[in-house]
Amino acid sequence: MGVRKSTRKNGRKKLDLRVVILAGGSGTRFWPLSRQQNPKQYLKIISDKSLIEETANRLKGLVPPSRLYTIAVAEQTRMLKRLLPRLPGNNFLVEPEARNTAPSLVLTTASIYLKNPEAVVIALPADHFIKDIDEFRRKLMLAAEAAYRFKKIVMFGIPPVSPATGYGYIHVSRSQRQEINGEKFYQVRGFREKPDLPTALEFMQSGEYYWNSGIFLWRADTFAESLRDYAPEMFSAWIKLLPALRKNDRQEIRRVFLEIPALSIDYALIEKIYGSLMSPGDFGWSDLGSWSTLYDYLPEDEDCNVSRDRVVPLEARNCLVFNPGKLTALIGVENLIVVNAGDALLICRKDQDQKVRELVEKLKKEGPEYL
Amino acid sequence: MGVRKSTRKNGRKKLDLRVVILAGGSGTRFWPLSRQQNPKQYLKIISDKSLIEETANRLKGLVPPSRLYTIAVAEQTRMLKRLLPRLPGNNFLVEPEARNTAPSLVLTTASIYLKNPEAVVIALPADHFIKDIDEFRRKLMLAAEAAYRFKKIVMFGIPPVSPATGYGYIHVSRSQRQEINGEKFYQVRGFREKPDLPTALEFMQSGEYYWNSGIFLWRADTFAESLRDYAPEMFSAWIKLLPALRKNDRQEIRRVFLEIPALSIDYALIEKIYGSLMSPGDFGWSDLGSWSTLYDYLPEDEDCNVSRDRVVPLEARNCLVFNPGKLTALIGVENLIVVNAGDALLICRKDQDQKVRELVEKLKKEGPEYL
Repeated sequence: MGVRKSTRKNGRKKLDLRVVILAGGSGTRFWPLSRQQNPKQYLKIISDKSLIEETANRLKGLVPPSRLYTIAVAEQTRMLKRLLPRLPGNNFLVEPEARNTAPSLVLTTASIYLKNPEAVVIALPADHFIKDIDEFRRKLMLAAEAAYRFKKIVMFGIPPVSPATGYGYIHVSRSQRQEINGEKFYQVRGFREKPDLPTALEFMQSGEYYWNSGIFLWRADTFAESLRDYAPEMFSAWIKLLPALRKNDRQEIRRVFLEIPALSIDYALIEKIYGSLMSPGDFGWSDLGSWSTLYDYLPEDEDCNVSRDRVVPLEARNCLVFNPGKLTALIGVENLIVVNAGDALLICRKDQDQKVRELVEKLKKEGPEYL
Repeated sequence: MGVRKSTRKNGRKKLDLRVVILAGGSGTRFWPLSRQQNPKQYLKIISDKSLIEETANRLKGLVPPSRLYTIAVAEQTRMLKRLLPRLPGNNFLVEPEARNTAPSLVLTTASIYLKNPEAVVIALPADHFIKDIDEFRRKLMLAAEAAYRFKKIVMFGIPPVSPATGYGYIHVSRSQRQEINGEKFYQVRGFREKPDLPTALEFMQSGEYYWNSGIFLWRADTFAESLRDYAPEMFSAWIKLLPALRKNDRQEIRRVFLEIPALSIDYALIEKIYGSLMSPGDFGWSDLGSWSTLYDYLPEDEDCNVSRDRVVPLEARNCLVFNPGKLTALIGVENLIVVNAGDALLICRKDQDQKVRELVEKLKKEGPEYL
């Protein structure tokens, strides 16, 4: 794909948007469905499409396939090409190793920088859910405009609907803000990881704290400047990456990539920056962090049993069933999560689905073939 | 098979024992494992052998295969021959229609009567469980001896271990009894079907009431006389059956068979007789009437989870898991029955397994393909 110059339309600069779907994640919170070889982004848990297909489909019409990228290790590329056949082959970026999001996004942004330093990069997790797609698209366009115009890193913060203790929170100033078309972009004052419950309650009541959605936007040149100012080590890697990418020197790319600390972009860069902007994302976001989060998004019967599959309840309430193509009968039970993955079956109390991690740890010894 | 004369050994008449396994039952209390085409007696729920194989194996050495019979409808014969390959082909008796146990046992006993009127018939349900097989065999031999010597119908009564309201009870006289080798055979005073709980408690305390095990023994000639004296309608069928069987006139056999009321042998004959004998069967009997009965017979972990399959519990207690060849993970749950039959999955509260019947009724409308 050649470098496209940004053009003017109606006297306004047309944005060069480049979306990067972070497709390399692996996780076990959806065990027994998610496995080492079949991580969450490939699961069809909300619809008949995988989460990564849903993520790409959400952008249709907003960004042409030619400006949609994925980044993942080489082993996942074949699966990604199968799921996202409209993307040009060169858009499946390959990271030399799975090393969290900071190295991935330095590499991706550097590639895009070489095409157009003013391009706006949108970094999207592959495995989240968004209910109100129209609102998401509207906000995304405005956020891209803000990232371009204000030359700041822009992120989406989710207005908390519960005092969640498992999320990172973004702290904003309500008075210091920018606006585009009446849409507010609040200046970020700081970040707080996983507060305790009383703190999370305070956060919720204050109106100044938002959940970190992991959706970030930046101009490629803004990103480079941020590295220079706030993460000098990563900036030195950036400096070496550009010529290596230009020459397509894979060995050098790999070498420099491995220099970048294996950290999340949040921790390695975003949280160090002063003056980023946050847009409140009230578009029905969920990170689908565990089985119980699906209660809000799957079809529900009159007794609050939720499932996309065939369930026959008898005095059963509030159960989540995932048993594709099979029948599930429930008698006298409530608040259960039931997941049948064929070779493995999970029955879990609704309020204990965080313990799936612990179970997976146990399986590392007792049944690694099921991971 | 020809008529064998009974022989004397050590001056005592050697019994001509003929065991009839009532193999025609159909039931749904073990849904989703039991189906119309795969009733309970064919299930491998206690071991790697089906219940009917277990029933036949229990008799090894006691009765030669040539004197072991099954009775069922023609459609089941192929399955029975596969499961019980040691039996001669002629021993798989065919009932013209499934019409409960009275017609089956009239037909079977008449067939045996033609071979030897003094033969002792042992009628065994195909799908029960017996824990102490040695004791069962010892008692069975003595009961056969009693049936032969006293010319009475002999039955096993199970000393109640709980005030069960779902069973039939046999009421005996503790003073009127017979003995063989010190083994007591109490005279039966009457029968009581499914008492209410206070009555069941009284029964238990009285020491005069036993659960009806459905295991009966009689000499073929005693059976004929009992029909004559207590069930004249069935006796007239018996009279017509003998020549039809002798001539192997299938049409006539069928016609007479259909004259016999479609009732249990208990109701049609046994309960009408005065003076039958009962032997207390304390050999660990269970009719395996529902999933929860298996708690007593399957391997148990330290948290009282019972299963023959691979279960990984995390703070889970008292669950019964049936998921052959698969792994089952349990998190934070208790008192659940979990049964995976491949195309259908059941999750049921332990104390509500009687409602499986109700569920099956519901499925007749909502999912008949799963029955």
